[in-house]
Amino acid sequence: MAEKSVYFFGGGAADGGAGMKPLLGGKGANLAEMARIGIPVPAGFTISTEVCSYFYEHGGRYPGRLEEEVADALSRIEKTMNARFGDRSDPLLLSVRSGARVSMPGMMDTVLNLGLNAETVGALAARSGDPRFAWDCYRRFVQMYGDVVLGMKPGGKDEHDPFEVILSQKKKEAGVSGDIDLTVEDLQDLVDRYREMVRRRIGAGFPEDPHEQLWKAIGAVFNSWHNDRAITYRRLNGIPEEWGTAVNVQAMVFGNLGDDSGTGVAFTRNPATGENVFYGEYLMKAQGEDVVAGIRTPQPINVAQKGDREGISLEEEFPAIYAELDGIREKLERHYADMQDLEFTIQNGTLWILQTRTGKRTGFAAIKIAIDMVRERLITREQAIGRIEPEQLNQFLRPVFDAGQKQRAVDGGRLIARGINAGPGAATGTLVFNAADAEERAARGEDVILARVETSPEDIRGMNAAAGILTSAGGATSHAALVARQMGKVCVVGAKEIAIDYRARTLSAGNVSLKEGEFISIDGTTGEVIAGEIETKPSEVIQVLVDRTLDPGDSQIYRDYRELMDWANGIRAMKVRANADRPDQAANAVAFGAEGIGLCRTEHMFFEGDRIDAVREMILASDEEGRRRALDKLLPMQREDFRGIFEAMGGRPVTVRTLDPPLHEFLPHDEAEIGELARTMGVEPGALAAKVASLREANPMLGHRGCRLGIVYPEITEMQVRAIFEAACDLAIEGAAPRPEIMIPLVGSVREYELQADVVRETAAAVMKEKGIEVEYLAGTMIEIPRAALTADRIAGKAEFFSFGTNDLTQTTLGISRDDAGKFLPEYLAKGVWPSDPFQKLDQEGVGGLIRIGVEKGRSARADLKIGICGEHGGEPSSIGFCQRNGFDYVSCSPFRIPVAILAAAQSALDRT
Amino acid sequence: MAEKSVYFFGGGAADGGAGMKPLLGGKGANLAEMARIGIPVPAGFTISTEVCSYFYEHGGRYPGRLEEEVADALSRIEKTMNARFGDRSDPLLLSVRSGARVSMPGMMDTVLNLGLNAETVGALAARSGDPRFAWDCYRRFVQMYGDVVLGMKPGGKDEHDPFEVILSQKKKEAGVSGDIDLTVEDLQDLVDRYREMVRRRIGAGFPEDPHEQLWKAIGAVFNSWHNDRAITYRRLNGIPEEWGTAVNVQAMVFGNLGDDSGTGVAFTRNPATGENVFYGEYLMKAQGEDVVAGIRTPQPINVAQKGDREGISLEEEFPAIYAELDGIREKLERHYADMQDLEFTIQNGTLWILQTRTGKRTGFAAIKIAIDMVRERLITREQAIGRIEPEQLNQFLRPVFDAGQKQRAVDGGRLIARGINAGPGAATGTLVFNAADAEERAARGEDVILARVETSPEDIRGMNAAAGILTSAGGATSHAALVARQMGKVCVVGAKEIAIDYRARTLSAGNVSLKEGEFISIDGTTGEVIAGEIETKPSEVIQVLVDRTLDPGDSQIYRDYRELMDWANGIRAMKVRANADRPDQAANAVAFGAEGIGLCRTEHMFFEGDRIDAVREMILASDEEGRRRALDKLLPMQREDFRGIFEAMGGRPVTVRTLDPPLHEFLPHDEAEIGELARTMGVEPGALAAKVASLREANPMLGHRGCRLGIVYPEITEMQVRAIFEAACDLAIEGAAPRPEIMIPLVGSVREYELQADVVRETAAAVMKEKGIEVEYLAGTMIEIPRAALTADRIAGKAEFFSFGTNDLTQTTLGISRDDAGKFLPEYLAKGVWPSDPFQKLDQEGVGGLIRIGVEKGRSARADLKIGICGEHGGEPSSIGFCQRNGFDYVSCSPFRIPVAILAAAQSALDRT
Repeated sequence: MAEKSVYFFGGGAADGGAGMKPLLGGKGANLAEMARIGIPVPAGFTISTEVCSYFYEHGGRYPGRLEEEVADALSRIEKTMNARFGDRSDPLLLSVRSGARVSMPGMMDTVLNLGLNAETVGALAARSGDPRFAWDCYRRFVQMYGDVVLGMKPGGKDEHDPFEVILSQKKKEAGVSGDIDLTVEDLQDLVDRYREMVRRRIGAGFPEDPHEQLWKAIGAVFNSWHNDRAITYRRLNGIPEEWGTAVNVQAMVFGNLGDDSGTGVAFTRNPATGENVFYGEYLMKAQGEDVVAGIRTPQPINVAQKGDREGISLEEEFPAIYAELDGIREKLERHYADMQDLEFTIQNGTLWILQTRTGKRTGFAAIKIAIDMVRERLITREQAIGRIEPEQLNQFLRPVFDAGQKQRAVDGGRLIARGINAGPGAATGTLVFNAADAEERAARGEDVILARVETSPEDIRGMNAAAGILTSAGGATSHAALVARQMGKVCVVGAKEIAIDYRARTLSAGNVSLKEGEFISIDGTTGEVIAGEIETKPSEVIQVLVDRTLDPGDSQIYRDYRELMDWANGIRAMKVRANADRPDQAANAVAFGAEGIGLCRTEHMFFEGDRIDAVREMILASDEEGRRRALDKLLPMQREDFRGIFEAMGGRPVTVRTLDPPLHEFLPHDEAEIGELARTMGVEPGALAAKVASLREANPMLGHRGCRLGIVYPEITEMQVRAIFEAACDLAIEGAAPRPEIMIPLVGSVREYELQADVVRETAAAVMKEKGIEVEYLAGTMIEIPRAALTADRIAGKAEFFSFGTNDLTQTTLGISRDDAGKFLPEYLAKGVWPSDPFQKLDQEGVGGLIRIGVEKGRSARADLKIGICGEHGGEPSSIGFCQRNGFDYVSCSPFRIPVAILAAAQSALDRT
Repeated sequence: MAEKSVYFFGGGAADGGAGMKPLLGGKGANLAEMARIGIPVPAGFTISTEVCSYFYEHGGRYPGRLEEEVADALSRIEKTMNARFGDRSDPLLLSVRSGARVSMPGMMDTVLNLGLNAETVGALAARSGDPRFAWDCYRRFVQMYGDVVLGMKPGGKDEHDPFEVILSQKKKEAGVSGDIDLTVEDLQDLVDRYREMVRRRIGAGFPEDPHEQLWKAIGAVFNSWHNDRAITYRRLNGIPEEWGTAVNVQAMVFGNLGDDSGTGVAFTRNPATGENVFYGEYLMKAQGEDVVAGIRTPQPINVAQKGDREGISLEEEFPAIYAELDGIREKLERHYADMQDLEFTIQNGTLWILQTRTGKRTGFAAIKIAIDMVRERLITREQAIGRIEPEQLNQFLRPVFDAGQKQRAVDGGRLIARGINAGPGAATGTLVFNAADAEERAARGEDVILARVETSPEDIRGMNAAAGILTSAGGATSHAALVARQMGKVCVVGAKEIAIDYRARTLSAGNVSLKEGEFISIDGTTGEVIAGEIETKPSEVIQVLVDRTLDPGDSQIYRDYRELMDWANGIRAMKVRANADRPDQAANAVAFGAEGIGLCRTEHMFFEGDRIDAVREMILASDEEGRRRALDKLLPMQREDFRGIFEAMGGRPVTVRTLDPPLHEFLPHDEAEIGELARTMGVEPGALAAKVASLREANPMLGHRGCRLGIVYPEITEMQVRAIFEAACDLAIEGAAPRPEIMIPLVGSVREYELQADVVRETAAAVMKEKGIEVEYLAGTMIEIPRAALTADRIAGKAEFFSFGTNDLTQTTLGISRDDAGKFLPEYLAKGVWPSDPFQKLDQEGVGGLIRIGVEKGRSARADLKIGICGEHGGEPSSIGFCQRNGFDYVSCSPFRIPVAILAAAQSALDRT
């Protein structure tokens, strides 16, 4: 334990500083730092976290010298603030607050206005000229102190706060409804009743002595480190028990002590746009909460911001104070090298800064500020990269609603539901209920919103045709959400208030009912579903990169985006690839900066055009010969698919996964569709229905899929590999340099890999011999079931690369079906079983443990094993950090996630160094 | 490399012995051993496996001294056998055979009758007095040598053996159909044509020089270690490449050289019954293959065996030779201390033993022989235990068909299908097609066979009522198979030839069709399905232990069984528990020797009586209050269940698993049943159907089940724990000592366990306080998903025991649904992906790897962590061995598997020492 337990700050000096968070907590360290650099903060002191530990280790006692140190620090406050604690004419009032190493907002206790009693309240009334204010402070203090320090806070949900009971009673008697309507006399009576109740309850009077109040409040704050809420919060956030909290005791200042008092909040730059202008609001004769509460309208702090508005700005009303504040703004920004959000109070013409912290900002603002600060030489490029939330980049990509139109729609009661914001952006269009209608209307040039209970692979073309996708069931990782994210579609899923009636072709929510063809709008950034039309426009970055309707030179937003990407690319160590199944997706991926394709799912191609007929013929064939006949029809189509993708990717590697889903996914399941297919195929509907039924599975996720298909039907793998190599060889002959990487899915044992790799090698060799040209390629596997990770050394003995398929690896490692998790996911998040949805953020302890085993064993057998990730987690920043720490060569994600992945990869490279 | 490469044997002496299998291979070591103990084996020598390694490492060359050593050994054979290799009047003929450390039957090459050529064939004709025999030998030798040594064996399936082509041609010319009809002249012509063909093909004459023949044959045998079949066999059986094969060169002897020659096979005891009588057959003037081929009927070797049969026994025909053979029988049994299966040949009055090996036997015989040999002080109890296949114990438990009746039924064409033998034993009864009918007819005293396409938990009561269960779909680990094994029911599953029509209530196969109520018989040991009735009877062990209709003292079979179990119990280290869900199952488990219950599945109780209504009410309740109302109805019923089980188990521990299956398993799914339930519950059928549909899951195995139920609905766990402790406390008050162990299923993270363990601890404490008595108990968890094993240290920090649920752990680790694996399982076994069905034998590399992690991490956090297994593997011998090696405290299996588990546990304890 350090010699010193109490750290003073104030009057331009401090015992502590920003680097002492473990000892002083975040708040204490920051107050000290501000004081140290000459920011006028109300004086105070911090009792260190070591005292907290001592307190718990010694049954609530304090170290011997603490009393003396507190007394010393208190007298320094009195000196600095020129007021005395407990003084009858000009009493110093104190706040007592917790302050742990990291912020635990609202979890621990606080006492304000400490030092008030029957005598000092009068002084406060006189000083403020507002007895009602003084007595209201006193009334609140007694209640807060009673709750926090004297333990009268209600416990269970049935019990009422005894102070609130008395307050309600009093208001009833006084015939008023709001606290604000109580008179000074009412408040005085209330305080009497409060104190009487306290005496009855605890058998002792409410403490009048300010020093007794102070020490008891300090004890209460230390005790609150171990209240239930705090314990739960620490468990959920992984905060160690032994850190403890500091206690901050600080002089109160008041913004309502007269006409030369006031209070305000400000950002050092515009938090919405990022513009480098001072931005804030203030109110004279007001306390902090009044600015936020909205009872009076605050004024802008400066002329620039006021513009044409009525009223007067701080800059005009108190030019000297504004100038001081503006100086502080500059000082703070330079000192913290980031945009700050600060609170200030003016007490009788003196400016006090109560708090400064990093300001929250929109994605656009975050990027603009980061870029500007680099240009201003306030921060380095690395700092700029480290400071932007990767997800904020999405704001560059999403279409947006016209803000005014949307507000009017909401005000008009057209907001009919809220779902999960699965595909950010805004979309408006006519409502359709199936994929065919979506395609048909889209072909006529309509923007359509496809509404389904849930989507399936058969809906892919319809989803691609739609401007937005809306489902009433399913979660953030449902099929609809996954596909939408990959396609970059606006998407809202799991909008539970909505009922969809396919037969009637209506969508209803509450008493609103929309028919097919009527307009609907969805905001995939917020999850809102709004009846009617709202105008949208694509983002400028999309206009440049995807639509190519805007010249890069004409868009400052694009240039900002580009600059940031260039910085990130210069920093990151891992490669970034895209999950893309079609040439157009591949082209987008390259435009966004993909360095290859990490996952090309061949099955998505099977739903294109009329090839689904050949696929079905193949599935329903009774023998190998019949299958080969059908596969022969698919071969030229697949070859064209691969040719297009190789062309789009230039010489970049393209990882093609062989057929993965269970075959029944390609078959119709309802009677009418089966009947139609039977007619097409010229077979008996009953026989076809029986075949379809025989392919049904109890747990398709764990069924006959992945390499299990290719092992039972090697001819399917052979056709796919032939298509890949025919395309690659043709291009090579034309002078291109395609780089296929063939990936075998769902391998669980080296023998499975061998059986499929044999087909790959033999077919590749045969095609290359036929075409008379060699194409460089790799053969490898997905690691997506636990057994593969556990036997990775044996598999890596044969496979040239691993790609961790973390979607399925999460399902199998956790034993949880993504499609069914919705039933308990909310409960699991609420009860802290999972810190976050493991299908969104990689479960680093469980699934990550298997991945570490897989990487270690894999590289033990093959030191240069290429390792990547192609699950949804490949585009999620914390998961990307995990990949960096575990030696991955690349991450792969959907094309529209690439900017996020690039930034996250750069950040994780910085973390490593 | 050893000094010596060639090991002679013969004439009562040998250079090698049985302990030298790595060097001499199994066959060579065994021949040496026999020679060494004075058994008359034809003289020969073994070229060691080290020469094989040298041969491969030096491009097909031999060590320098080999030629000399072979020459020396050859001259010792000539001396011993009194014949000369290549001699024109009395030529020594040789066999050249492979012989690896372990048997690889038929995988490598053999050459017989080596040493024949144009000259020696005449000598053989003269010696045998049978020129046709001599020329047939020669013809066969040329063909075999041509195939094996000269490489003329056909390669692909289209190519014909050129020798067979010539042979067919010759037979056509001679106008005969069998080889046997060819005359001496025909054979002479054939040999000429063979030799001419060989000359044409290889451009050189067929080697006449016996020494050249010998060396080329040795090389061919060494080369055959690397043929495709041998490589595949080694891969499948895990035999290391570097072991290599030895080559055995041995004098040929002939059983057809005259009236004082003959050949036979014999067992040292009766292999069917285990009786200690010499048992065998012989044929005079015959070669070994003639006895097996069945062209002539062999004679019994002794009078005891001949009984009333016609003919003459060896004992009568050649008393001296029989006496010598009987002496050898005794010598071999004493030497090998096991029942032997031996081959002998009499050449001109001289007895030669060609082979001895451990004799195959039935389960009854295995046990009788083991017990008798202990009594005869031939072997120790440990040896006896080590020698019985645990599965053979099943023959003690199964009812059996009357053998004569069954044969007549099969002969009469009543065998209509063959399925998978899922529940050994025999059952006959009237055919029913649903559980209700099964119960109804059984209640009337009928034996019924329940035939279903597949079974589900709703069929449990019907399955329990049935004498046998037959399904047309599903595999060895389908629901029907699992339940049948646990119940000890006769069961045939996956009888694919059978079509079941529920509506018409018929079962048809081929052109046989059986209606409900007609008799059918199933043999669960063989998988046979037979139309009509065949009489059965329960085994004596069952009559004693389960039916209690037979006094132990009246059954020798039971006493044998009991003695063996006592020995095993004295040896084993692990405890053996039972998976039992009901009091009657628990009682059976105890009778079979269970030391506790390792898995009591509470959900099986939910289908009993009218409680399913309360279960459904609970599931369909819209809020906690409604659920609690329904749970209150279930509480007394569950309490009675547990009381019965605790009573049956005495003071033995009972592991109760809280509710596990997804709730939709308890609901009806077809429209009619839903309608009926809706009427019962007084709700709208549409609303009920919607609720049922909303509970449906894409992958129920990975869905809302296990502890996920108890976490979302803690009141279910609470009711179950209350029922357990109310029953336990009541019994404790009455003076009993119940020992509940509460097991939380499907835990994947310590937090899940904590949440459920809190409910357990709080409820247990509340009940014990109410009842005023303490009951000792444990709380622990199943480890059945990979994440649990990976984070076992954290979980063991809270849980007092682990029970590995290897059924689900196999499903998740391999990513394979047990219910759907049938589609690729046969292919996976055929292609060597799996050495065996991983749902039957534990996958020790993959799943076992996770279990090792789980055990190690678990014990690292809690050194005395109790560890068991309760998956199906808990009753499978190789998996039990795995448990022993990894420090498990107990295995748990279905009651009828307990004898197998006890024996396997004893064997694995012996393996460890």
